[in-house]
Amino acid sequence: MTTAPRRVAVLGLGLIGGSLARRLLETGTAVVGWDPDPSTREAARALGVDVLAAPADLAGADADLVVVAVPLRAVDQTAQLLASVLGPDTVVTDVGSVKTPVRAAMDRAGLSDRYVGAHPMAGTEHSGFGASHADLLVGARWALTLDRTTSERAFLMVAAMITATFDGVLYPLTDDVHDEAAALISHLPHVMATELLNLVAHAAIRPVAVGLSAGSFRDGTRVARTTPRRTQAMVTDNAAWVAPVLRRAIAELEQLAGALESNGPTEEFFDRADVLRDAGDGTVDDAAGTPEAEDVQSLVLADLPGWQEHLSELGASGGQVLAADPAHGSVVVVAPR
Amino acid sequence: MTTAPRRVAVLGLGLIGGSLARRLLETGTAVVGWDPDPSTREAARALGVDVLAAPADLAGADADLVVVAVPLRAVDQTAQLLASVLGPDTVVTDVGSVKTPVRAAMDRAGLSDRYVGAHPMAGTEHSGFGASHADLLVGARWALTLDRTTSERAFLMVAAMITATFDGVLYPLTDDVHDEAAALISHLPHVMATELLNLVAHAAIRPVAVGLSAGSFRDGTRVARTTPRRTQAMVTDNAAWVAPVLRRAIAELEQLAGALESNGPTEEFFDRADVLRDAGDGTVDDAAGTPEAEDVQSLVLADLPGWQEHLSELGASGGQVLAADPAHGSVVVVAPR
Repeated sequence: MTTAPRRVAVLGLGLIGGSLARRLLETGTAVVGWDPDPSTREAARALGVDVLAAPADLAGADADLVVVAVPLRAVDQTAQLLASVLGPDTVVTDVGSVKTPVRAAMDRAGLSDRYVGAHPMAGTEHSGFGASHADLLVGARWALTLDRTTSERAFLMVAAMITATFDGVLYPLTDDVHDEAAALISHLPHVMATELLNLVAHAAIRPVAVGLSAGSFRDGTRVARTTPRRTQAMVTDNAAWVAPVLRRAIAELEQLAGALESNGPTEEFFDRADVLRDAGDGTVDDAAGTPEAEDVQSLVLADLPGWQEHLSELGASGGQVLAADPAHGSVVVVAPR
Repeated sequence: MTTAPRRVAVLGLGLIGGSLARRLLETGTAVVGWDPDPSTREAARALGVDVLAAPADLAGADADLVVVAVPLRAVDQTAQLLASVLGPDTVVTDVGSVKTPVRAAMDRAGLSDRYVGAHPMAGTEHSGFGASHADLLVGARWALTLDRTTSERAFLMVAAMITATFDGVLYPLTDDVHDEAAALISHLPHVMATELLNLVAHAAIRPVAVGLSAGSFRDGTRVARTTPRRTQAMVTDNAAWVAPVLRRAIAELEQLAGALESNGPTEEFFDRADVLRDAGDGTVDDAAGTPEAEDVQSLVLADLPGWQEHLSELGASGGQVLAADPAHGSVVVVAPR
């Protein structure tokens, strides 16, 4: 019989790991944690986190679930450590913005079946435990990634935590679909914002361009204003998906440039996204509308061969997991309208 | 002796023209107006605008200043009309987002010396008189364009209205510098926002991409969500400046794509705008800091041969006109720090 996690270990207590730990503590779940920074460990201990002396002490920490919240460059080493210290029943998840390389690291460490990738679409321009807070992830949209080897127990435990403790909207996806979506809605917007800022930064008329800048420039460059190192890491970690999406953007922008230079037709370029404008779903609020009752159904995973594929296809078409019940092995899903 | 305008005519009572008229009325300036839409004329009349039966009636309207607030495609015809009906002392300005073609139309109509271009950096996603309000332009950043033929009287009258009645921050510029700045800070951001929306609109995984979209996508596409016709008009009206800026962006994005594909260095791309990040002037609020007293000086234009060039160079380097005094022929300027 599977259960929701009673005791969660969080490795890496930065903005996301710290916010996760705070919310878990606030809602009565025991939290074990570790961070490479001594002052972060001290602050976490003061908050009620059972801070480990070293990551290897996870061996005796009795956690049901380990959340890997370290930078991607540290994931391989972390996965190897987890494989060497965790008992066979401990579930593993992570919170990174790219999923394919994390699963590859879990595969190499032999942790595939107990691993579920998670990516909360939330953040701030700040970073570190000091910027974390218990509400940051509450109500966020999350991607949850799985493949055909994902165990029912692992999926249900992570999904239960996200839907119950974090009140999250949860899209079950393959790693590829997640990483393509992240390139489209997060990484490419960061690249374009950076380029808009770059052009102004090196224009001869920079002073007056900055002086005159108003709403469209401010919004279009907001995410590029701070933390270029973090933006670079995010984009290069997902280079396999960002590069082809960027090439497509370049090709379409070249067509527009040609039309502008030759006084050619440009209407199609500006109307191309009308399907989003007409549907009214270009905005986040519209997309997260309350599901109609008839779209909602409960699925017992054990009764559904290939449930992993079923769920990831549902998610790719916009379907969501609304709740997970580890005790009964079931999920409540809503089909896209 | 020149004076501030007692009576202003506004041709075109849309979002900008309507907001201008409302503020002028509110601050005690008489407003004459016309709009092609009968219901707009009716609403303007109800507000206290002295509505003309036809634009040609400007001949007897006794306006000191005419504000052309019509779409660019109607500017040529409007300029010809003004040339045929205005007395020699009436000053002409406009509020369009591109300045070079407006000056060309004024040149063709023989109105060059009495014309001053104006562009308030303000707006909303809405349009029309119904969306206009008296506060929309108050405190905005304005570009004011001039060339060596601009008369002192015209410049001082328009500058006095913007600084006194609209509490505006005013950058005096050549048309070229304005149009390049507008391409960088307004038109290209609109193009990029449109392209980001286009990519998602035609992705196979559109439903989940829309579903997961959060802050960076919402901000990066906000200006593309509505009024694609207006965006298209803005961009194509300034094609001469948007095209080369877009080509530069494409070349820089291609370098990045190449680096992502070959695992090459990308740090320089993400750091290139550090000059804005370090200066803290990537944000509008910082850029509009209160001038230090020692940067401020008063200039009597008649004492300054080539004052037009002097002011437009000041503006291009980030200097502002803080106040204009038509009665004494002087302006107060602040040099960039």
